Amino acid sequence: MAAHNVTVKKTITALLDAKKYQTLKDVLATMNPADVAAVFEELDEECMPLLFRLLPKETAAEAFAELQPESQELLIRGFSDTELREVVNELYVDDAADLVEEMPANVVKRILAQAHPEMRQEINRILQYPENSAGSIMNTEYVSLRPRMTIAEAITRIRRTGVDKETIYTCYVTEARRLLGTVSVKDLLLTEDDSTPVSEIMDENVISVSTLTDQEAVAKMLSKYNFIALPVVDTDARMVGIVTFDDAMDVIEEETNEDIDLMAGITPSEKPYLRSNAWELFKHRIPWLMLLMVSATFTGMIITGFESALAAQVVLTAFIPMLMDTGGNSGSQSSVTIIRALSLGEVEFVDLPQVIWKEIQTAVLCGVSLASLCFVKILIVDRLLLGNSAITVLIAFVVCFTMAVTVLIAKVIGCTLPMCAKRLGFDPAVMASPFITTIVDALSLLVYFGATSVLLLH
Amino acid sequence: MAAHNVTVKKTITALLDAKKYQTLKDVLATMNPADVAAVFEELDEECMPLLFRLLPKETAAEAFAELQPESQELLIRGFSDTELREVVNELYVDDAADLVEEMPANVVKRILAQAHPEMRQEINRILQYPENSAGSIMNTEYVSLRPRMTIAEAITRIRRTGVDKETIYTCYVTEARRLLGTVSVKDLLLTEDDSTPVSEIMDENVISVSTLTDQEAVAKMLSKYNFIALPVVDTDARMVGIVTFDDAMDVIEEETNEDIDLMAGITPSEKPYLRSNAWELFKHRIPWLMLLMVSATFTGMIITGFESALAAQVVLTAFIPMLMDTGGNSGSQSSVTIIRALSLGEVEFVDLPQVIWKEIQTAVLCGVSLASLCFVKILIVDRLLLGNSAITVLIAFVVCFTMAVTVLIAKVIGCTLPMCAKRLGFDPAVMASPFITTIVDALSLLVYFGATSVLLLH
Repeated sequence: MAAHNVTVKKTITALLDAKKYQTLKDVLATMNPADVAAVFEELDEECMPLLFRLLPKETAAEAFAELQPESQELLIRGFSDTELREVVNELYVDDAADLVEEMPANVVKRILAQAHPEMRQEINRILQYPENSAGSIMNTEYVSLRPRMTIAEAITRIRRTGVDKETIYTCYVTEARRLLGTVSVKDLLLTEDDSTPVSEIMDENVISVSTLTDQEAVAKMLSKYNFIALPVVDTDARMVGIVTFDDAMDVIEEETNEDIDLMAGITPSEKPYLRSNAWELFKHRIPWLMLLMVSATFTGMIITGFESALAAQVVLTAFIPMLMDTGGNSGSQSSVTIIRALSLGEVEFVDLPQVIWKEIQTAVLCGVSLASLCFVKILIVDRLLLGNSAITVLIAFVVCFTMAVTVLIAKVIGCTLPMCAKRLGFDPAVMASPFITTIVDALSLLVYFGATSVLLLH
Repeated sequence: MAAHNVTVKKTITALLDAKKYQTLKDVLATMNPADVAAVFEELDEECMPLLFRLLPKETAAEAFAELQPESQELLIRGFSDTELREVVNELYVDDAADLVEEMPANVVKRILAQAHPEMRQEINRILQYPENSAGSIMNTEYVSLRPRMTIAEAITRIRRTGVDKETIYTCYVTEARRLLGTVSVKDLLLTEDDSTPVSEIMDENVISVSTLTDQEAVAKMLSKYNFIALPVVDTDARMVGIVTFDDAMDVIEEETNEDIDLMAGITPSEKPYLRSNAWELFKHRIPWLMLLMVSATFTGMIITGFESALAAQVVLTAFIPMLMDTGGNSGSQSSVTIIRALSLGEVEFVDLPQVIWKEIQTAVLCGVSLASLCFVKILIVDRLLLGNSAITVLIAFVVCFTMAVTVLIAKVIGCTLPMCAKRLGFDPAVMASPFITTIVDALSLLVYFGATSVLLLH
């Protein structure tokens, strides 16, 4: 909770307690809808309906759209039909569709009953598109112009129809719903001759997405081209809606959260941390912990297989954590780097040979440096300073050799697995550190005991 | 490299080889500047100056701003003074300032010599602000209006002065450079009476940032409020510039990359993966690997201290990897979740007690489930199926007890360290999985051997 919100929350609570509703109304009128929503979330549930009724009409719908689903549901359950109608019909269609998607069936029924017929139709259309597609996040309200309109006519049209549109700044020139070009309000305003037809100044190299394009790809395009909005066309190349930059920012944040959760071995959740209770956190974390714990059976088996070697040279055990951790860290450096590069579109599957070669070179540099440092450390710190006379030069050599090989294995596996996962249609983030650590652990132990058998036990 | 670019790259290479410069010019004219830059980066360096000269003037500056610093330098070194002047003075001031910051001194000298005096002055002003501050990324060109202007006058002013402005859609109402309010072009166009003074329709509850506000905070505000631009004011509350949404998107991507790099134990780099050579990757990865390897000396010392116990019960060694990995995974789940929540502003230091309590509850749920599953697994898989008769019920109990305690320790440390790091002014992402794994390893071994001494060796 931001420090600023704490102050506002205190003021509002005090005014509520003192029943100073007119002052509250004035205070709320100065606030941005996003701040109103943030403060509402922090207050006791009971105050919300009262406070919501004190909001200016313009702010109310926008603040409502910014609230968490639980708070939205609470408010709707308290609304009269008239109040619900006012809020629902003030929402942008994409926010209304989000709302319908989140609410339980009986609330949805009430919402759709109160929505204007066109609004209801648009909501239903958006809900038909697959989850996470451009169609499912688009807004169907945009400014469309005709190619033969003059600039003066275009501006008149914008002034007449713009009030309900989420953005008026990019206008779409269409004919029979086919998208011919785009023209920005900037171009309309800055062209000196008002009688120029729109077709003359429009940009015909339109960059558009299909209704089925993945929302992440749409968000990346908006970010790449610095557009305010991207047009969405259906399979017959007819324009059906737009996706705006603010939705793109939300999608990018959501997808990044999902990647980061997966990389840490957590089933992604959209709920903010402080709103999730321990049971929810548990449910999102335990599957991976269990899976990875059970798969550690293999490392246990490997160690059991070499029990006699370890019993003969107990000092070897002392280096197992270091070897495992270095392998795990090397692997996660590569896997996380590649997962991020895949997610940013910097790397694709065709680049696999180049990536592997780069990782091999890096692994050799890292492996040789680490092994050298480790050799010196073992002989000076462990043998001389800590006085562990069981450590011979040969043992130090076996440990350092294993370390170099482990780093190499870890880096190659770390870059290969995420790329293959993506190729096979899985989310590459699943192949991050925890998973790779388990594999690298087993392989590094095999190398360690292999080297031990060859060099120490003969 | 996106599949689409591969095709365009082939076309352009073929046209270049055939010396079809007019066709090339026509093809380039249809392309968006961001795509032009992407294709240029993929082609041989030698083609770039020739192709750049074939670009339409409007696209050239924008494409130039999107290029990597190495390519920009290459182009500038080939430019005549006239060419350099044309490109530099077409750039938006914030892009020009970025350019000056990236280029070597002798190139900077040439750039500043060719820039218009006002441009030079603005560049120098931006460069005075600290790195990563709002001042350093702002654009000093924006539309300012006077409060007493009518809407008609305001629109005339926008039409006269808007051409060089990065955005005209949010206009700033100022008096003696003090920011009084904002008004959007949408409001200007949609107000019916042209003679209304701007002061009547402007929004006086202006949300602004200071020149010294951190760029990450600015980006988050833009994303939260869905603004196209945020005004930047100096310490005397005078308006000095704006930060636009597209810069915010870039900042968010950059900061996320930095967080993810740090979480994986990598010194952050701004260079895309495929453009970094092995030596650069090595330099960004080796410091953490070395540090963490050396700190594993402690785990080694702990194991050495319990050598006699391990020699007596070699079977205990087999469970070390599983205990260490489960601890590491549990800790990184918590640390990564908290680092992300801190970075999104969902959690602050004051929430520490609440966070620790939530993590303790989650840890108990996870610990008990994992320990139970582990107990069953050890007795059925390891003892019965794999026939390891050295495993007694008491050993299984010691292992599972250690596991539950390790999960608890890991989750509490995992959430506490990043929050304390942030409180002390460090980047919390540094306290991610690799670092926490090392600490949790040592502690879990101490618990393991402690429990062994008490329960098994008496």
